[in-house]
Amino acid sequence: MAKTRVGIINVTGYAGIELARLLCRHPEVELTSVTGRSNAGKPLAEVFPHLAGIDLTITPHLEAVDFIFSALPHKESAQEIIPMLEGEAKVVDISADFRLKEAENYPRWYDFTHPAPRLLEEAVYGLPELHRDMIATEKLVANPGCYPTGAILAIAPAIKAGLVAPDIIFDSKSGISGAGRTLKLNTHYSEANEDTSAYALEGHRHLPEITQEIEALAKKQTFAITFVPHLVPMTRGILTTAYASLVPGKVAGGRTGEDELVKYFEDFYQDEPFVRVVKSPPHTKHTLGSNYCHIFPTIDRRTGRLVVISCIDNLVKGAAGQAIQNMNIMLGLPETTGLESLAVYP
Amino acid sequence: MAKTRVGIINVTGYAGIELARLLCRHPEVELTSVTGRSNAGKPLAEVFPHLAGIDLTITPHLEAVDFIFSALPHKESAQEIIPMLEGEAKVVDISADFRLKEAENYPRWYDFTHPAPRLLEEAVYGLPELHRDMIATEKLVANPGCYPTGAILAIAPAIKAGLVAPDIIFDSKSGISGAGRTLKLNTHYSEANEDTSAYALEGHRHLPEITQEIEALAKKQTFAITFVPHLVPMTRGILTTAYASLVPGKVAGGRTGEDELVKYFEDFYQDEPFVRVVKSPPHTKHTLGSNYCHIFPTIDRRTGRLVVISCIDNLVKGAAGQAIQNMNIMLGLPETTGLESLAVYP
Amino acid sequence: MAKTRVGIINVTGYAGIELARLLCRHPEVELTSVTGRSNAGKPLAEVFPHLAGIDLTITPHLEAVDFIFSALPHKESAQEIIPMLEGEAKVVDISADFRLKEAENYPRWYDFTHPAPRLLEEAVYGLPELHRDMIATEKLVANPGCYPTGAILAIAPAIKAGLVAPDIIFDSKSGISGAGRTLKLNTHYSEANEDTSAYALEGHRHLPEITQEIEALAKKQTFAITFVPHLVPMTRGILTTAYASLVPGKVAGGRTGEDELVKYFEDFYQDEPFVRVVKSPPHTKHTLGSNYCHIFPTIDRRTGRLVVISCIDNLVKGAAGQAIQNMNIMLGLPETTGLESLAVYP
Amino acid sequence: MAKTRVGIINVTGYAGIELARLLCRHPEVELTSVTGRSNAGKPLAEVFPHLAGIDLTITPHLEAVDFIFSALPHKESAQEIIPMLEGEAKVVDISADFRLKEAENYPRWYDFTHPAPRLLEEAVYGLPELHRDMIATEKLVANPGCYPTGAILAIAPAIKAGLVAPDIIFDSKSGISGAGRTLKLNTHYSEANEDTSAYALEGHRHLPEITQEIEALAKKQTFAITFVPHLVPMTRGILTTAYASLVPGKVAGGRTGEDELVKYFEDFYQDEPFVRVVKSPPHTKHTLGSNYCHIFPTIDRRTGRLVVISCIDNLVKGAAGQAIQNMNIMLGLPETTGLESLAVYP
Repeated sequence: MAKTRVGIINVTGYAGIELARLLCRHPEVELTSVTGRSNAGKPLAEVFPHLAGIDLTITPHLEAVDFIFSALPHKESAQEIIPMLEGEAKVVDISADFRLKEAENYPRWYDFTHPAPRLLEEAVYGLPELHRDMIATEKLVANPGCYPTGAILAIAPAIKAGLVAPDIIFDSKSGISGAGRTLKLNTHYSEANEDTSAYALEGHRHLPEITQEIEALAKKQTFAITFVPHLVPMTRGILTTAYASLVPGKVAGGRTGEDELVKYFEDFYQDEPFVRVVKSPPHTKHTLGSNYCHIFPTIDRRTGRLVVISCIDNLVKGAAGQAIQNMNIMLGLPETTGLESLAVYP
Repeated sequence: MAKTRVGIINVTGYAGIELARLLCRHPEVELTSVTGRSNAGKPLAEVFPHLAGIDLTITPHLEAVDFIFSALPHKESAQEIIPMLEGEAKVVDISADFRLKEAENYPRWYDFTHPAPRLLEEAVYGLPELHRDMIATEKLVANPGCYPTGAILAIAPAIKAGLVAPDIIFDSKSGISGAGRTLKLNTHYSEANEDTSAYALEGHRHLPEITQEIEALAKKQTFAITFVPHLVPMTRGILTTAYASLVPGKVAGGRTGEDELVKYFEDFYQDEPFVRVVKSPPHTKHTLGSNYCHIFPTIDRRTGRLVVISCIDNLVKGAAGQAIQNMNIMLGLPETTGLESLAVYP
Repeated sequence: MAKTRVGIINVTGYAGIELARLLCRHPEVELTSVTGRSNAGKPLAEVFPHLAGIDLTITPHLEAVDFIFSALPHKESAQEIIPMLEGEAKVVDISADFRLKEAENYPRWYDFTHPAPRLLEEAVYGLPELHRDMIATEKLVANPGCYPTGAILAIAPAIKAGLVAPDIIFDSKSGISGAGRTLKLNTHYSEANEDTSAYALEGHRHLPEITQEIEALAKKQTFAITFVPHLVPMTRGILTTAYASLVPGKVAGGRTGEDELVKYFEDFYQDEPFVRVVKSPPHTKHTLGSNYCHIFPTIDRRTGRLVVISCIDNLVKGAAGQAIQNMNIMLGLPETTGLESLAVYP
Repeated sequence: MAKTRVGIINVTGYAGIELARLLCRHPEVELTSVTGRSNAGKPLAEVFPHLAGIDLTITPHLEAVDFIFSALPHKESAQEIIPMLEGEAKVVDISADFRLKEAENYPRWYDFTHPAPRLLEEAVYGLPELHRDMIATEKLVANPGCYPTGAILAIAPAIKAGLVAPDIIFDSKSGISGAGRTLKLNTHYSEANEDTSAYALEGHRHLPEITQEIEALAKKQTFAITFVPHLVPMTRGILTTAYASLVPGKVAGGRTGEDELVKYFEDFYQDEPFVRVVKSPPHTKHTLGSNYCHIFPTIDRRTGRLVVISCIDNLVKGAAGQAIQNMNIMLGLPETTGLESLAVYP
């Protein structure tokens, strides 16, 4: 039987390139079309020598495929995808264009009016650990942002179990590739190297996604969430440190309480192929290049505060890997197909 | 007049080396004696080629000097310094041995019984921005830890003004040199590079220092403080992100409140030569190699939470530079002498 | 049919860990035994969290397997392997203990007398691009060093074609993981980061290997080879720049000569699955995490000198990946099995 | 007496910023005017927060000063400087516009016809170690390129002494800041980090400078020079490894010859304040942030080849620091004024 043909719209950004890297080695699908603007007409392997040996040419428009990944920037992605939804192909959109359920969040956070608010209801937020069943049956999946993936996975078990007060701080540390391949001064090597800084203190676009999913998990309770992203000098990886107050009486004090906490997390993720509750503080390097998420929940003994640390590779579980995980679910393939690679450590 | 002769005990760790770098170019004192164990007998410039041209030999014991810096590890530093306090020379101790006022904190946090609890009362906590007058008159100054320097300076104005509830989170990101020159697996290049991780979640030794100074500023109000340090892949720099709830009614809402907040910080630091309240989120690179501390206070508009970001070079303002700043004060020299170098950017 | 059982002696160094990472995902063999000294008794996944999910315990001694990798240091590796050669299992030795044909090179370069000089004749130097046929039939394969892999592959086509004078300079730039997992000051993060240096100017142990293979290719002509390794601040990758004088009359002048040169290289490597002759100067990042070697041959137009640049991942093609490539050949498996992953770029 | 007023044309590139950093702390001159295009009208300390406290505004045009540094790109620098030479102010040009003595090299290497070939004769190549006397008396000094500074200083003593055959290879490894502050893909963080590559294999613009100075030192003997620059993932520093054949009979064999070689170098640089002949292979980190150049000459014992390694900070001795060294000479100040800072190690 012929393999499913898949295409990548805008292969030339980091999410698109990472999709190509993984899809070229996926045993059950065939990457047959990749688009790009600036490099249209060139062999993919010439523009990206690490793909030497892959025989594909970057084209301006997508050729006929059975499954589509859009790695376009927000707003452009919706414009390009909406007409394609008339066809047979299922779609995973890596942009933010179908992540938010409330249409008014688009002008507020992304500076454009959403062209198809009705689709926001139909699209599934593609975090398999929360929405696997819906992902399996819908045609359009909105792949989560990199920060939200790490943040939501870090706190979801505690939210689900009603352990925490509705007031959470996410302090995230991201590698620079999260800022994309577009040239900017803050991602110029000499500026970003040997430097750590916070940014987007006035509000980062990933905040409404995080809030939406946490509040949904909490059965629509309202949460006050502070999210401060930081850039640290490495290419890949996001470490998120989540802080929240425990609701009194939910877990015991001392060591017993910590064990109970860990049990909540282990139970929540027990059947998840890509989430591991670990026994010591995780390192981003433990997930580099892989689709895994490592999570370490603990209680700060002096203050009784919940502290959870998660890490992912922002380009894999935080983008291309999760998109392929979604594709596997949507196509009825084993969920881990093509994503089994272990982290490249050290 | 002969210059003041200064000596460094244990020049071979990173704090000691940094003292040597700065003192060799200090115009008002003369570095005349440096000690070390493993390298005793060797020329300083042979062990540390970046000091090529400096004519000093590492000796096992300190020679006669007028001013002493101890860069020994904790416990050893107290043992070495205590007899020296009989003499004329003033002392800045870079270790933690005289930072904590409560003697029982030493067995609890540092695993030793303090040999001279009485000196804990006399020693001054050497953060010039809080204790300049006492530093000027005392004989023994305990140089603050690197994390506490960044954390306390970040929050002090808000504490002093009574703006915040007694519940603070410090999320700190440190370069690797903060872990010292002793070889360990977590500071082995291939382990630390391209990696970010949290550590000391069970409680970091710098926490009691931070708590002590904040509670003193708050007139002995008790604070619940969570401090989570992280290692990020750079050599120098600490960025601290402080989170606290504002006491209702202390600052106005919206932009006005932010302006009021900034005003509290600017007033608090207006005469400080090494602290700058900056108008955009600071980068550790802005202070690399220098004795400056940059601070950015803001209010998270959605939650009304106070967020303050500070950065320092952990080896300068966080160790050797601050030690020399203390020396300048103790010797009656202009406080900035020998510390004027600007950050090495980019 | 049961899969071939493979074992790794000394899994806890970087070559051993990298073998584990790749073998755990190899579809045709099963990693069933891993040994280590300091961590014997611990689960592999506890010591190396990036292997979370792998159910293996580190043992002090190898269990019964069908194929053995030794990742021990030199001298110890020979001691451990020699008795094992009595059994049925084939062996790939990652150490230098069977690479050199002349027994007297061991005391000269490695400070020990070889315990079994006869085996030096039998062992095959495991560079598949030069010795594939012998690798397929021998029981003991000596896996090449990381520098020699990059250096020999860079110059082999020119040597084979008799293009160069017997005088070559290899200037190599290596990531820090090449220096291993043992703690040393020069691989301490704060020393190696933001630093580049040359080392081993008195002669590096990989030189006799390089010389041996080049002289063999040149039909025993003697070569004067200068090899200067450098450490650059990255974890993985070796870039080698080779300089040699062209024998007059072998290639034409100008552009034609360059095309002829490229043709020699392309022909030499045309059937090689892991070597790519590329059209622009290669980047180590193009091979990071993969078993590929990229090679760019060119002629310095002003001097007529041959300049060839090669790059590999020192832990994959330079160690564990090449060892598995050898295993595949020795077991009669398709040579690329388990090694198809593309480079993790960016 | 009023301090000499100095100005920087184009302060916003890395050489310009570094000039500002150093000149703001120079005790004998006063930085009074800084120009820039994109940021004209803004306070210098707002655009560059590491200069917080410096009270200067970036202006579109230079104000009246006594000494001028031009940090403009080539071609533009000549255009701007030439009219200024009518005035009293002396000029150090950091661009390449007055480095090359032969006017025809400008169209060949820099794609423009030189607007004032006559000035090429008058301008002095500002390498104080070779041309101090002429620097002291001329009005226009062409500050050397970063690579030429390291390369020429590495080989000059051997050239002067007639030790080497006229055939040299310079293999240089540069930090990324050498590529400037202009945004380009190859200096985008995620591309340059964890990567090493060679570039400009068709010929780098710094080659004619290197050749010019070496041939002048060799009394116009013609040299075949191969220069291959590489980018390594660090912000600052250039390490150059120079390879040359020794002229037979010039130095003895073995250890004696090495000692003779070192003596040639030590004698050549004995009075130089910023060049140190070191006894072990230098590290770029040993000169980071400082104006020093460390040089290690040795002989490869197996081949008898001369190998010399030099390192500098490309922005200090390779640009701004050397420019100020030239200024000091031109103004009759002690040559080291304002440049005494030691390297920021680690």
